[in-house]
Amino acid sequence: MSDKPAVKKVVLAYSGGLDTSIILKWLQTEYGAEVITFTADLGQGEELGPAREKALLLGIKPENIFIEDLREEFVRDYVFPMFRANTVYEGQYLLGTSIARPLIAKTQIDIARKVGADAVSHGSTGKGNDQVRYEVAYYALEPDITVIAPWREWDFKSREALLAFARDHQIPIAKDKLGEAPFSVDANLLHSSSEGKVLEDPAVEAPESVYMRTIAPEDAPDKATVFTIDFERGDPVAIDGEALSPANLLTKLNELGHANGVGRLDLVENRYVGMKSRGVYETPGGTILLAAHRGIESITLDRGSMHLKDELMPRYAELIYNGFWFSPEREMLQTAIDFSQAKVTGQVRVKLYKGNVSIIGRTSPYSLYDQELVTFEEGKVAYDQRDAAGFIKLNALRLRVAAKRDRRG
Amino acid sequence: MSDKPAVKKVVLAYSGGLDTSIILKWLQTEYGAEVITFTADLGQGEELGPAREKALLLGIKPENIFIEDLREEFVRDYVFPMFRANTVYEGQYLLGTSIARPLIAKTQIDIARKVGADAVSHGSTGKGNDQVRYEVAYYALEPDITVIAPWREWDFKSREALLAFARDHQIPIAKDKLGEAPFSVDANLLHSSSEGKVLEDPAVEAPESVYMRTIAPEDAPDKATVFTIDFERGDPVAIDGEALSPANLLTKLNELGHANGVGRLDLVENRYVGMKSRGVYETPGGTILLAAHRGIESITLDRGSMHLKDELMPRYAELIYNGFWFSPEREMLQTAIDFSQAKVTGQVRVKLYKGNVSIIGRTSPYSLYDQELVTFEEGKVAYDQRDAAGFIKLNALRLRVAAKRDRRG
Amino acid sequence: MSDKPAVKKVVLAYSGGLDTSIILKWLQTEYGAEVITFTADLGQGEELGPAREKALLLGIKPENIFIEDLREEFVRDYVFPMFRANTVYEGQYLLGTSIARPLIAKTQIDIARKVGADAVSHGSTGKGNDQVRYEVAYYALEPDITVIAPWREWDFKSREALLAFARDHQIPIAKDKLGEAPFSVDANLLHSSSEGKVLEDPAVEAPESVYMRTIAPEDAPDKATVFTIDFERGDPVAIDGEALSPANLLTKLNELGHANGVGRLDLVENRYVGMKSRGVYETPGGTILLAAHRGIESITLDRGSMHLKDELMPRYAELIYNGFWFSPEREMLQTAIDFSQAKVTGQVRVKLYKGNVSIIGRTSPYSLYDQELVTFEEGKVAYDQRDAAGFIKLNALRLRVAAKRDRRG
Amino acid sequence: MSDKPAVKKVVLAYSGGLDTSIILKWLQTEYGAEVITFTADLGQGEELGPAREKALLLGIKPENIFIEDLREEFVRDYVFPMFRANTVYEGQYLLGTSIARPLIAKTQIDIARKVGADAVSHGSTGKGNDQVRYEVAYYALEPDITVIAPWREWDFKSREALLAFARDHQIPIAKDKLGEAPFSVDANLLHSSSEGKVLEDPAVEAPESVYMRTIAPEDAPDKATVFTIDFERGDPVAIDGEALSPANLLTKLNELGHANGVGRLDLVENRYVGMKSRGVYETPGGTILLAAHRGIESITLDRGSMHLKDELMPRYAELIYNGFWFSPEREMLQTAIDFSQAKVTGQVRVKLYKGNVSIIGRTSPYSLYDQELVTFEEGKVAYDQRDAAGFIKLNALRLRVAAKRDRRG
Repeated sequence: MSDKPAVKKVVLAYSGGLDTSIILKWLQTEYGAEVITFTADLGQGEELGPAREKALLLGIKPENIFIEDLREEFVRDYVFPMFRANTVYEGQYLLGTSIARPLIAKTQIDIARKVGADAVSHGSTGKGNDQVRYEVAYYALEPDITVIAPWREWDFKSREALLAFARDHQIPIAKDKLGEAPFSVDANLLHSSSEGKVLEDPAVEAPESVYMRTIAPEDAPDKATVFTIDFERGDPVAIDGEALSPANLLTKLNELGHANGVGRLDLVENRYVGMKSRGVYETPGGTILLAAHRGIESITLDRGSMHLKDELMPRYAELIYNGFWFSPEREMLQTAIDFSQAKVTGQVRVKLYKGNVSIIGRTSPYSLYDQELVTFEEGKVAYDQRDAAGFIKLNALRLRVAAKRDRRG
Repeated sequence: MSDKPAVKKVVLAYSGGLDTSIILKWLQTEYGAEVITFTADLGQGEELGPAREKALLLGIKPENIFIEDLREEFVRDYVFPMFRANTVYEGQYLLGTSIARPLIAKTQIDIARKVGADAVSHGSTGKGNDQVRYEVAYYALEPDITVIAPWREWDFKSREALLAFARDHQIPIAKDKLGEAPFSVDANLLHSSSEGKVLEDPAVEAPESVYMRTIAPEDAPDKATVFTIDFERGDPVAIDGEALSPANLLTKLNELGHANGVGRLDLVENRYVGMKSRGVYETPGGTILLAAHRGIESITLDRGSMHLKDELMPRYAELIYNGFWFSPEREMLQTAIDFSQAKVTGQVRVKLYKGNVSIIGRTSPYSLYDQELVTFEEGKVAYDQRDAAGFIKLNALRLRVAAKRDRRG
Repeated sequence: MSDKPAVKKVVLAYSGGLDTSIILKWLQTEYGAEVITFTADLGQGEELGPAREKALLLGIKPENIFIEDLREEFVRDYVFPMFRANTVYEGQYLLGTSIARPLIAKTQIDIARKVGADAVSHGSTGKGNDQVRYEVAYYALEPDITVIAPWREWDFKSREALLAFARDHQIPIAKDKLGEAPFSVDANLLHSSSEGKVLEDPAVEAPESVYMRTIAPEDAPDKATVFTIDFERGDPVAIDGEALSPANLLTKLNELGHANGVGRLDLVENRYVGMKSRGVYETPGGTILLAAHRGIESITLDRGSMHLKDELMPRYAELIYNGFWFSPEREMLQTAIDFSQAKVTGQVRVKLYKGNVSIIGRTSPYSLYDQELVTFEEGKVAYDQRDAAGFIKLNALRLRVAAKRDRRG
Repeated sequence: MSDKPAVKKVVLAYSGGLDTSIILKWLQTEYGAEVITFTADLGQGEELGPAREKALLLGIKPENIFIEDLREEFVRDYVFPMFRANTVYEGQYLLGTSIARPLIAKTQIDIARKVGADAVSHGSTGKGNDQVRYEVAYYALEPDITVIAPWREWDFKSREALLAFARDHQIPIAKDKLGEAPFSVDANLLHSSSEGKVLEDPAVEAPESVYMRTIAPEDAPDKATVFTIDFERGDPVAIDGEALSPANLLTKLNELGHANGVGRLDLVENRYVGMKSRGVYETPGGTILLAAHRGIESITLDRGSMHLKDELMPRYAELIYNGFWFSPEREMLQTAIDFSQAKVTGQVRVKLYKGNVSIIGRTSPYSLYDQELVTFEEGKVAYDQRDAAGFIKLNALRLRVAAKRDRRG
């Protein structure tokens, strides 16, 4: 490509795997750029040491290798804010991949500023959502940055061509990477996702082998697991009374969910780039968290706030899915959502059983549930049943006028 | 009450139970009105013969006793249209009670017109949503009708006073009605609900005894049940290839759900009249239907339609919950929703296992899922990965301009 | 009425006019309550001295007479926040009456707390919106307060009965109050409204005599008036470079609007209590402010924020119109709206001419308008026209897939 | 460009002007394609004869020249449906350009099918919205069509290069086209718009010379013009009692608006492609129509429908602005909007005066305005003022419970 922008230093989101290693080399050879690698621990469950070694092996200078544990920041500043909104995309998907991208992009930009890099690069393909999420975030944070998306640019026509390039450049190829993977995977502390290949026909059930985060409900214990989650201002803070940091809490929920077969989802979704795709998601802790958060909100949140939140949620979910975390409209919505959570404090009791999550109890010092109002006896806030007659009459008035009109008309 | 409206004939929604029998008598004695009883079979699972006998016993003339099987109309014209929207109230409740009220009200008004009645009456209390749903529907359909809501009007101060009235008027009292029920129940073909008494403390788990529509997941078979549902234009029409009428289809789904412990829900909801209440719902067939409908939509519905539907849904659900089925705005939304379903035709494969509902396959002659688009090979609709660069660039443009401004500002 | 609640002290929203004077007396005689009068200066353009004298004359103790100048608080904390949202009810009405009620209610409750009153009262009728706005605010701020709405309670059947009561209780009756007013009026610094009587037939043009805040466009100068408004964070702060307090600024805009025949509106609106009503509104300064605020937003607000604001606005307007200023959902929306205004700073140039308001210039240190982007030359944020091809292609992709499906189907 | 798609026949949206004549030639020379010209009369106020002659002069075969009068279709099937929704983009813009593009695109595709063309082309630049509107419509209607957007493709670096190409190919150049136009113009029966050059600085007032559709308010008659508009099912059908076809009616409204200085707008808007742009719009008839439609709706539309419409409108406007007329979600919304208009029938009385549009009277056989409800006397639909107490009490209940909680908390 003749119109490649001149690039001096590029920060690459580097996993240590074969593909991003090829990208690393390609950036060096095609752009002649100094490559800075950035590898994040988002709880994907892989050791990061090998990524460092691989980078060194590929000639990256030690000071150009950035490895960061972002787990607490990820859960505290991205996952929890999103769950405050009970966010679900297209009625089902808990956005486990979507929510990780802005943090990776932001950290890349931070590093680019630190090292004086003029470009960033990622390993996402040209058909998916992740390229959008990365790049929209890059541009929103650093508007003049150069973005290199090798999968959209290079000329490799096949897997074989890629492997040949790797061999030519002494990139080690693990044996299991010689063939094509039966599906592609994304993972972080919130979820694992699988898509492609064996999952491509939406008529065919996903094979058990794609699941990695949860055991099958069929294999889960025959006895339910019951525990409590404490919330403060909309965020979970303790399990069974034990205070936990955000990442530790989600880790614990993941273990509970994993062991009880909770959080599997097999769906077809609409990508922002315009096509439908089929994915299998496992979000054990997140699935529990959503139910628990709804549970604590059910007694602490006013109806007006709750219904407004429910109406705003699909838009909010779409913004995150499409990659607009760093947009003024997402921030506007977040401000409103966070405002609503001031009294979302209390405890829910959760029961897990072979894939099921049930909320079986809720308590709060800020409860709006008023037992006296509901029972037949009149409560402290006197409820006069006769008020209901007037309430109904005036609510129906416009319909009565219209009915008379329609009869007349 | 001195300002009671003069009423000649009143159509009472009559269950045959003790409470509505007392109302029947009370309408006769207090209003001096001729009472017409209307008992509907909505699939609540009770025989209707006793209701007729009881009405006769209480002196209702045979020609004033209306007993109607509304099951098919209920499912076809109320339940299915609602499920076309994937309707869920407050993120969880499938509106099983709410959706039945407008049909009962409408049939009452039809009967009132037929017999020339000038009033209608129901047995709902002054604290709940059902009074609103009934009465808003009455007024919307027949704006000058007189509505009598005995629970809001009469002076009985206690259960004992009610029973005394019953005894005074020779109303038979079943032994088990002498004490108060441990909770109150509503049931129809879509669901059963329980609330009150033993459920009043939201911190305390619902006892197993409140469940009547489903066996516990723990008691369900150790082997999954797998079957198919066929959809046409958004509505289910067949199970495992067998065409079924709407009511028969829902009945069959209920059986499948029942047997697999599917569809239990324990929640705290916000009533329209302003208080929170705790209920336990069982919606076995509906829970399956919701998942299956989402499944068939996932491959047949365009993203634009789906996201618009998702954004409109909370409002639509609120309208049904609040009793505004017969309102122009509900009808406007329905028109849009129905329009979207023209191609929601095809088959989903459903797996039930101990409370879990999974969609494990979807096919449709109108599928929008295009395997060629998703795979690396370019499809019939050529997808050029380089298009993504421009797509991202222009979507990010406003954010870049803002980022430059914010830096400057 | 036998079920009148026992009331010791009641704070009455008192205008000093005949109607609230009758209420004052009626509260004393019917409730035997000690009456505290509260008269607010909201810029309605009436002297408050006579209200004090009248209250004294009717036997109110000096320490029970509260007269407060709320103009700055009104504009700063109610009017301006509302205009940040470009709020318009039913596409037209600037909510001049609605926005004043919560402040009056709040001040009444503040006084009630100070003097230890157990009740509040207002002079609004049982058919309008204002009763709702007052009382919802009372209850939201002081949930156990007793609310007395004399117009809904008393038995006066006619204007004559009211006047007789006034005469019996030595309430002075101005000569022009002997007959019925040709229409009723509400006024404050934001607007004047007229409704009733001569305005009741929506087919008939409002007579010129109902207008009191504006001269007719026909009578306005033949030469345009041009001036600038400076905004800071969404609020106007200066006119023609002169910094003005909120109330002074709105007063100045009112003068400019008045002189140029700006801000008249004749409409039929939908009341919250279920009926339609016809009103004539004059909002000279507010009409200018709305246009000016849109003008400064047009160059400083990102598209995402603006469109989100536009979608939320009708809901926000409805909340204010219906009386839910002090509700968590209004506050949620306000939080989001206020967040969006951080950079809505700059200057607009306004032209008024015989009823027309035109924005003829906008500048801002935070402008997002980028002349280089729009012109053919490529700007600092490089805009590559070829990006548009990819942008369009991917945006159209789902429609192409659907078109192929529909052809096939 | 080496990767130009092979194209045999291309239908060009041809105005007869210099730019599209250059495109015509360029398509012939660069693509070697047979060019079919399509020129539409959308009421832009230009004779179409010259376009035919010019096409012939440039070598287009007579059977390849399509000239169509689309005025009635434009107003009936595009403009009126849009006005049923009271559509306004960003609070101000009446979408006069946006609404014409889908019809032009649709007709181009119709012609392409008729003549067997495999491509379509338009003369919009790569920076604007129109390219998107054309192309999204092309793809939605004919998913495999090849789209040629010369302004995005060719290599002309300057106006001079374009003119040189024109001279080289014997394209006649009008004298006034030798220099650059002071602004660019779009026009159709609904509006004229101007943008660019002299309008590029949003701080500077638009010069009087850009206005072409309206006289200045200052130049309008000193006496108001008053007339009536009849509506049927949401659409205007007659002026002063004279039935008119859609295009004739809009033409008449344009004349009335023109003569009274109605419909000028100077604004900065957000383009879909991500930048802000400044435009001057004149929509004389549309401005009247919007006010008149709101007027007839104000007495015929139920509150529920009206508020739902108001909430949906910004989304609907955005879809049209962005070019998604032929999308399932726009059609969903249209279905709902059209449903609401069934009784929007009646007459409004309109007054125009020096730029002002006032609705001074409304009547309808389907009026929901009930004079008896509003007056003090009780109406046919009995309104009991005491009902308001219950209405308020229950509406405030949740706020009272929350206030007690917050005090406690």
